[in-house]
Amino acid sequence: MSKNNPLLEAFNNAIYPVGSHSKRNIQVLKEVLNDSDGNLDSDVYGSGKLIENFQEEMAAFLGKETAVFFPSGTMAQQIALRIWCDSKGSKKVAYHPLSHLEIHEEDGLKELHHIETILLGDKDRLIRLEDVLQMKDDIACLLIELPQREIGGQLPDYEELVAICTYCREKGIKLHLDGARLYEILPYYQRTAAEICELFDSVYISFYKGIGGIAGAILAGNEAFTKESKVWKRRYGGDLISLYPYILSSSYYFKRRLPKMNQYYQEAKVLAEYYNQCHGVVTKPLEPVTNMFHVHVDLPKEKLEPILVDLYEETGVGLTHYVRESSETTCCYEVNIGDRFANIPKDELTKAFQRLDAKMREAIGVSG
Amino acid sequence: MSKNNPLLEAFNNAIYPVGSHSKRNIQVLKEVLNDSDGNLDSDVYGSGKLIENFQEEMAAFLGKETAVFFPSGTMAQQIALRIWCDSKGSKKVAYHPLSHLEIHEEDGLKELHHIETILLGDKDRLIRLEDVLQMKDDIACLLIELPQREIGGQLPDYEELVAICTYCREKGIKLHLDGARLYEILPYYQRTAAEICELFDSVYISFYKGIGGIAGAILAGNEAFTKESKVWKRRYGGDLISLYPYILSSSYYFKRRLPKMNQYYQEAKVLAEYYNQCHGVVTKPLEPVTNMFHVHVDLPKEKLEPILVDLYEETGVGLTHYVRESSETTCCYEVNIGDRFANIPKDELTKAFQRLDAKMREAIGVSG
Repeated sequence: MSKNNPLLEAFNNAIYPVGSHSKRNIQVLKEVLNDSDGNLDSDVYGSGKLIENFQEEMAAFLGKETAVFFPSGTMAQQIALRIWCDSKGSKKVAYHPLSHLEIHEEDGLKELHHIETILLGDKDRLIRLEDVLQMKDDIACLLIELPQREIGGQLPDYEELVAICTYCREKGIKLHLDGARLYEILPYYQRTAAEICELFDSVYISFYKGIGGIAGAILAGNEAFTKESKVWKRRYGGDLISLYPYILSSSYYFKRRLPKMNQYYQEAKVLAEYYNQCHGVVTKPLEPVTNMFHVHVDLPKEKLEPILVDLYEETGVGLTHYVRESSETTCCYEVNIGDRFANIPKDELTKAFQRLDAKMREAIGVSG
Repeated sequence: MSKNNPLLEAFNNAIYPVGSHSKRNIQVLKEVLNDSDGNLDSDVYGSGKLIENFQEEMAAFLGKETAVFFPSGTMAQQIALRIWCDSKGSKKVAYHPLSHLEIHEEDGLKELHHIETILLGDKDRLIRLEDVLQMKDDIACLLIELPQREIGGQLPDYEELVAICTYCREKGIKLHLDGARLYEILPYYQRTAAEICELFDSVYISFYKGIGGIAGAILAGNEAFTKESKVWKRRYGGDLISLYPYILSSSYYFKRRLPKMNQYYQEAKVLAEYYNQCHGVVTKPLEPVTNMFHVHVDLPKEKLEPILVDLYEETGVGLTHYVRESSETTCCYEVNIGDRFANIPKDELTKAFQRLDAKMREAIGVSG
């Protein structure tokens, strides 16, 4: 695959890849299994200590009564919205136009549940209090994603978030948190996961994003909610006889990486500064509020790619394995900071960004 | 758990457990990972050599154009039936009254797809050609399960199976094979998987039943069918970023156990004979046609359980970890033969069944 993709190939050969924790290879699981006792019994269709203990730990972490382990967030979130729709007797929910449910799930929510989705706010900004106040439809549930990934991982002010949630509570609108990257927002908000989740009726968290596990998700809420979610998990074919490869890896990397979320966040701010000093390059947000951000470049994708390939080969620093076209003259990519960043010598990083700046000046036509 | 369950506890302490391959513990995955190269790249949302190669192998094994790896059979089979319903423009399918879809999936097919199910034949016997010929409804698809697990793993004569399939083909009814245990029927039918699958438009196979993997399923059919199934897999939340723990274990145990299916089948016949020589005990089928069968006992569950506990403690042979009530005066359980059986000394087995017969005579009141 990388043979036809020079950027990916150059990234894979780079000595200092900048983003994420490690390569997505089998070693990620081998490390977990080497740390696990072979005599540990498998979970069996949602039962057994292995799954029950982890669910209890996560419920406590999120400050919810109960939690259920799911193979994926797609499954967990559709089910959450369906349950809130059934409880309200309404087939309408609201979320951001770039919600995962809207753009990455082949319309599963609509095809499987015939739920109508109200898109709140605009594609290029967060949902605001005024968007919520102006909602005309009688919706069962508002889904809020924190951070809003597709616009670079932005976050509302905490006061605005509280105001949105308070309004919905008063109106009898259920609140679901798409907290795939919930861990990553704790340092900025300076709050515990439980404090943030208290604003919501249900919450989903993921274990392969910031945590760097293999796959898997937790859905949490009150007991009636999670009980019903287990019935739907069975209906979806998500109640596997054994989910332990995902549970063990979730638990393993959760323990190791949760304490490092502030480090990743501080490093993201450092890296964004490097980017923003380059001509024709800007990050979104300008100052990250989590360990992630987007990089926007004033060059067409076809022009940036060979520049990056040369850069990686010259400096050994790999900035991204892909670039996405955003218009005919601009392109962008996402950056997530994980374990790798701390291992890159500052000198090498400085050198790489000096070279990037020089190359960008040349490409854009700025005189030195 | 086993503290409150003396039968399970006694079974777990038995030196010679009779059924299946091994304990369902983490060791099953550790063994696979120890055999895998850590540098192997993860599959990523259904792409990558790891998943694509296995899908191609399985398509070839089943004699189908293409195959898709799913986390579960529940998900795979609902999707197969939905696709055939859409292609025919009918919302009706037919299957056995004890089909997995009818009794183990919380009505997922009906709740998620609003598909109406026609139950063919009776609960205590196989679907017959006459049942199919008498169908009045205009169904999109007939699902056939081979072997029919809930009645002890029975199989129709191959000629009758061919006649059923031929009739459906003529009537434009799609045929789906629930082949969760397809491997296990090959020795009896003396046919390849591809020969059997040729009778069907689509087929699902499982990797944690006869094969003894961790979880996972393959759905196979022509290219248009599997392409659509991938869209539904995404909608269900089954298109995980990484399915490799299941794929690697499926592949590993498939290679090791497929060649042993005839051995398991022969051993099942031997074990069934042991059972049938005991008073008040009969197997269903009387002579197994696969590596599985059901054991029916003329005692209430509460009377059989302490007998089994004593038996395991006296002889070291563990026959079953559970017993299910079938009426006020009878009970039953399922037996699946795997790797373990070959390790039990014949003498110990003979002794155990002599003791079981003696205990049954006593309990039922037959004079020696």
